[in-house]
Amino acid sequence: MFNKYDIIVVGAGHAGCEAATSAANLGSKVLLITMNMGTIAQMSCNPAMGGVAKGQILREVDALGGKSGIISDTSTIQFRMLNRSKGPAMWSPRTQNDRMRFAEQWRMMLESTPNLDIWQDMANGLIVKGDRICGVRTSLGVEIEAKAVVLTNGTFLNGVIHIGEKRMGGGRTGEKSATGITENLVELGFESGRMKTGTPPRIDGRSLNYSLMEEQWGDEQTGKFSFTDTQTTLKQRCCWITYTNQEVHETLKEGFEKSPMFTGRIKGLGPRYCPSIEDKINRFAERERHQIFVEPEGEHTVEMYINGFSTSLPEDIQYKAIRLIPGFENVRLYRPGYAIEYDYFPPQQLDLTLETLKIKNLFFAGQINGTTGYEEAAAQGFVAGVNAHQKINDKHELILKRSESYIGVLIDDLVTKGTEEPYRMFTSRAEHRLLLRQDNADERLSPIGHQLGLISDERMQKVTDKINNAEAIIEKTKDIKISADQANSFLEEFGTSALTHGTKLHNLLTRPQIDMDKLRKMSSQFNDYLHQFDNETIEQAEIKIKYESYFEKEYEIVEKMKKMEDKEINPNFDYNSLTSLSKESREKLMKIKPRTLGQASRISGVKPSDITVLMVHMSK
Amino acid sequence: MFNKYDIIVVGAGHAGCEAATSAANLGSKVLLITMNMGTIAQMSCNPAMGGVAKGQILREVDALGGKSGIISDTSTIQFRMLNRSKGPAMWSPRTQNDRMRFAEQWRMMLESTPNLDIWQDMANGLIVKGDRICGVRTSLGVEIEAKAVVLTNGTFLNGVIHIGEKRMGGGRTGEKSATGITENLVELGFESGRMKTGTPPRIDGRSLNYSLMEEQWGDEQTGKFSFTDTQTTLKQRCCWITYTNQEVHETLKEGFEKSPMFTGRIKGLGPRYCPSIEDKINRFAERERHQIFVEPEGEHTVEMYINGFSTSLPEDIQYKAIRLIPGFENVRLYRPGYAIEYDYFPPQQLDLTLETLKIKNLFFAGQINGTTGYEEAAAQGFVAGVNAHQKINDKHELILKRSESYIGVLIDDLVTKGTEEPYRMFTSRAEHRLLLRQDNADERLSPIGHQLGLISDERMQKVTDKINNAEAIIEKTKDIKISADQANSFLEEFGTSALTHGTKLHNLLTRPQIDMDKLRKMSSQFNDYLHQFDNETIEQAEIKIKYESYFEKEYEIVEKMKKMEDKEINPNFDYNSLTSLSKESREKLMKIKPRTLGQASRISGVKPSDITVLMVHMSK
Repeated sequence: MFNKYDIIVVGAGHAGCEAATSAANLGSKVLLITMNMGTIAQMSCNPAMGGVAKGQILREVDALGGKSGIISDTSTIQFRMLNRSKGPAMWSPRTQNDRMRFAEQWRMMLESTPNLDIWQDMANGLIVKGDRICGVRTSLGVEIEAKAVVLTNGTFLNGVIHIGEKRMGGGRTGEKSATGITENLVELGFESGRMKTGTPPRIDGRSLNYSLMEEQWGDEQTGKFSFTDTQTTLKQRCCWITYTNQEVHETLKEGFEKSPMFTGRIKGLGPRYCPSIEDKINRFAERERHQIFVEPEGEHTVEMYINGFSTSLPEDIQYKAIRLIPGFENVRLYRPGYAIEYDYFPPQQLDLTLETLKIKNLFFAGQINGTTGYEEAAAQGFVAGVNAHQKINDKHELILKRSESYIGVLIDDLVTKGTEEPYRMFTSRAEHRLLLRQDNADERLSPIGHQLGLISDERMQKVTDKINNAEAIIEKTKDIKISADQANSFLEEFGTSALTHGTKLHNLLTRPQIDMDKLRKMSSQFNDYLHQFDNETIEQAEIKIKYESYFEKEYEIVEKMKKMEDKEINPNFDYNSLTSLSKESREKLMKIKPRTLGQASRISGVKPSDITVLMVHMSK
Repeated sequence: MFNKYDIIVVGAGHAGCEAATSAANLGSKVLLITMNMGTIAQMSCNPAMGGVAKGQILREVDALGGKSGIISDTSTIQFRMLNRSKGPAMWSPRTQNDRMRFAEQWRMMLESTPNLDIWQDMANGLIVKGDRICGVRTSLGVEIEAKAVVLTNGTFLNGVIHIGEKRMGGGRTGEKSATGITENLVELGFESGRMKTGTPPRIDGRSLNYSLMEEQWGDEQTGKFSFTDTQTTLKQRCCWITYTNQEVHETLKEGFEKSPMFTGRIKGLGPRYCPSIEDKINRFAERERHQIFVEPEGEHTVEMYINGFSTSLPEDIQYKAIRLIPGFENVRLYRPGYAIEYDYFPPQQLDLTLETLKIKNLFFAGQINGTTGYEEAAAQGFVAGVNAHQKINDKHELILKRSESYIGVLIDDLVTKGTEEPYRMFTSRAEHRLLLRQDNADERLSPIGHQLGLISDERMQKVTDKINNAEAIIEKTKDIKISADQANSFLEEFGTSALTHGTKLHNLLTRPQIDMDKLRKMSSQFNDYLHQFDNETIEQAEIKIKYESYFEKEYEIVEKMKKMEDKEINPNFDYNSLTSLSKESREKLMKIKPRTLGQASRISGVKPSDITVLMVHMSK
């Protein structure tokens, strides 16, 4: 009934949609299998994209030719650049999104992608011949052949929903769970585990008293994730901030003895950095209050998401406690918060391409790898989709370096260290975060997307133009000299010391009190010159001038570490033959099969002395 | 956790949405319980509203103050008035709708309705005290109290999906089924049964060859269902017509031995008048081909609905056969067609208000009553919602007569005769269909909606104006005389006999060859006069003039039958005391508890002689 596909992608969430479109756009004939075509690309948790480190990831996905940035931009109802007051490495774009529009835009994107077919069904088995995947089986009993398969099952594999002492099967509340795949993978020798995540109650926004909360509007000048010409047509909406209090906490504690988290009913570990409210109360008992963000679910809907109040306590406790939050006195719930437990596969079982080490041409992406977050999922989906295509066409792999992208950090962390709890990206996970900024994602990664064929020549030219133009602006600041007379009244106004003699604009810009806008006021020549450039280019030049010395130092460090990072290890190397390695190291190295000495050095339990042994051996 | 509600509505499909909004708009505090807030108001089957008899029902729902007409109008991507070439009783509005917009519009309607709360959960039990409903229990273990409950569970009660020999639980494909309610009702003494319905495959429209099909566009002048000022903003789309052939039929027959319909695997009866393609081939073996309509699922989507090809044959047979239809040679399926079996409750267990006879304040609406069709569901939902509100406020019941509405026919048929197979409305079911036209639904029913409080004074005034204005136009045609000289050249052109002397316009309009437009050409005085009126009013006058004599005869019949129809019977009357009634009649009358002699006369098995016995007894 089905023609043979090049690639089958199972699951149509953030990971699955990126995997399917990236592979199809590269030219593979792709089948995307989803349990319900009506629930493609759901934002299962909060109606927001980006944020600290995550916004950078989305920019990277976009720079490589992925689609999540575009989808997010066209469904934005609020944009904020977080951390503007800090250094540019911390600047992080974040949007509130219209949940329905987001899903619809993805659906339309999938529908308009050539080579991409969709089939509504549940994949419940893998067809494996020898050590190679050959297709999937579905609940309809169909067998569909493919050269590669990407699994992006999210929270659906044997998903169980918990609310207080109640348990029910489901991949999301109101939806079925998926069965068969875990059992099949375990039979094939994969190790599986359980993880847990949760989501807050949804409420009727008409029942809130907003006068007791703080408004939080988006930036006046709205930004976006994509480096392409996207824009939102939706009305921009306000969020609100309020706080829990001791009364709320005491009420929540009444439910602790029925909490599936505390009674041991939930076996899986939850996300440490996105904890439930009961977790926060438990772990940070000294905190008198926790912040709550009230986020609209869309342009028109009255439904609100209660960010910061994720919980799986009994629903009557949830209700009793939430009403004690200022503004929530008369709240009406649409549904309670809940926790969900699901199967994942410890990601040390993967190669850096996201292909499994055990079964050839089988790729995993998203929550199945133990991650959390839409952005982390999208990034993995993109990489898995690309690598599935590259693999079956004998083309070069896409392995991003830790020094060139958060995506590289993400995948290297997963594959090398694994994760015991849902993995979330932070800037602190990236040793070279100064270089991994949202502003330069295009410069860093578009050449790679271009080489793959996912970034058009025209788009690549724009990236090159931006780089060259920023360089020209930098040169210009070194060209134009300003006299002390001309500058000093301005400098006084800007609160910085006066000049004794003239200087180049470049020198002034390195002062923290001076920015491009101020420089433009000081020099009409410079101002006139800048008219030909767009804001992003001017900002790029500004960042490079102001932080040049920091960046240079960071590049030096990268260069130093390059030797280790670039030192490749044969993936079939028999570590057991190196008896001078500790037993633990040998086991870990045999399991992870690191690609480089750098990766080997990050494996927990592998000691510096082991690395020295390896280096010595490899230099022979 | 919940305050007590006036009314709980279980299920948020066409019936549930109408029930919830009508009751809330009347002032009841309503809770709508849905298993998934993301799938409210799904068009589970074809993306279309209205059609023969069904279009009339939608106009009636709108005239009464229901919302389905408005929702449909704002999501229309094609409008056609079916049967324009026949008499006005047959004119039937029908739309193609954007599936996503339709659901979204209902969601927004619910959200913006005061007094209406929503709760996402599965109702799985009823709270009954004595013979009265007091609330529902849910899968979260919540007990929610209410004075009345409306059940609109659709196809979800113990829903089982069949595709060939495969069976899976589900209320729609990809969605969970609902459990508990049937078992609870059976315990309470209700009789339950199984019904079956089905749906065709969905396909990727990009894979069709449209040059082999006939285009079918909507009407140039787009109409609508609602008598309010609705309009669609969506791009209007084309449908296509193609046909099956002997080859298709032969291929489908290969799957008959695995058909759940023919192997007895499906116990429930399917809709006779909306049969599956295998049913059509089986029952109409002499037919060489069957018509297939290819209907777009929305303004932008490439997904197509294959109207006329509903099937539950094995998916490989579906695929093999569908490819043999002209234009479908390279078709790609999104999902196969399937049959669904679900629990229903034979509707003789209901009063004409849709309240159950057994349990007070418990109402049933939609497919749970054994009907099929969005429109039939919406109408029942509206009536049940209104009556639930009226009941708990000791207000008058809403029981529509067979002579005043299709809705009256629908409910009287269900309650009085029951149904063994999914009940669908036809014009032939209405003995007074000449009077139950789409054009006069406002005249017939808005006074009732107004009396209830669901039609505003302003809106009612517009209805009255329309009636009066049409009357004025009719009078005008009786006023204006036209001379033979003035008329005859026109009459020749219009192909009708010449006049010998002058006559009134009214007389000319009764000729089949003459319509209002032609009359306007013949008389500039009349044309000028009409400028003050809108098209609907002018059309109304035209219909009344042209069909006056038919209507009058029909009204006479209604008047004659009125004696029986209005003759009320005490619902607690003990038929067993009338020994002259046959045993069968006594049993049936005790079960159905007819409200009137008219209703009693329609009970199958109750003979005319029994009615005479009743009349004699009642006149004592």
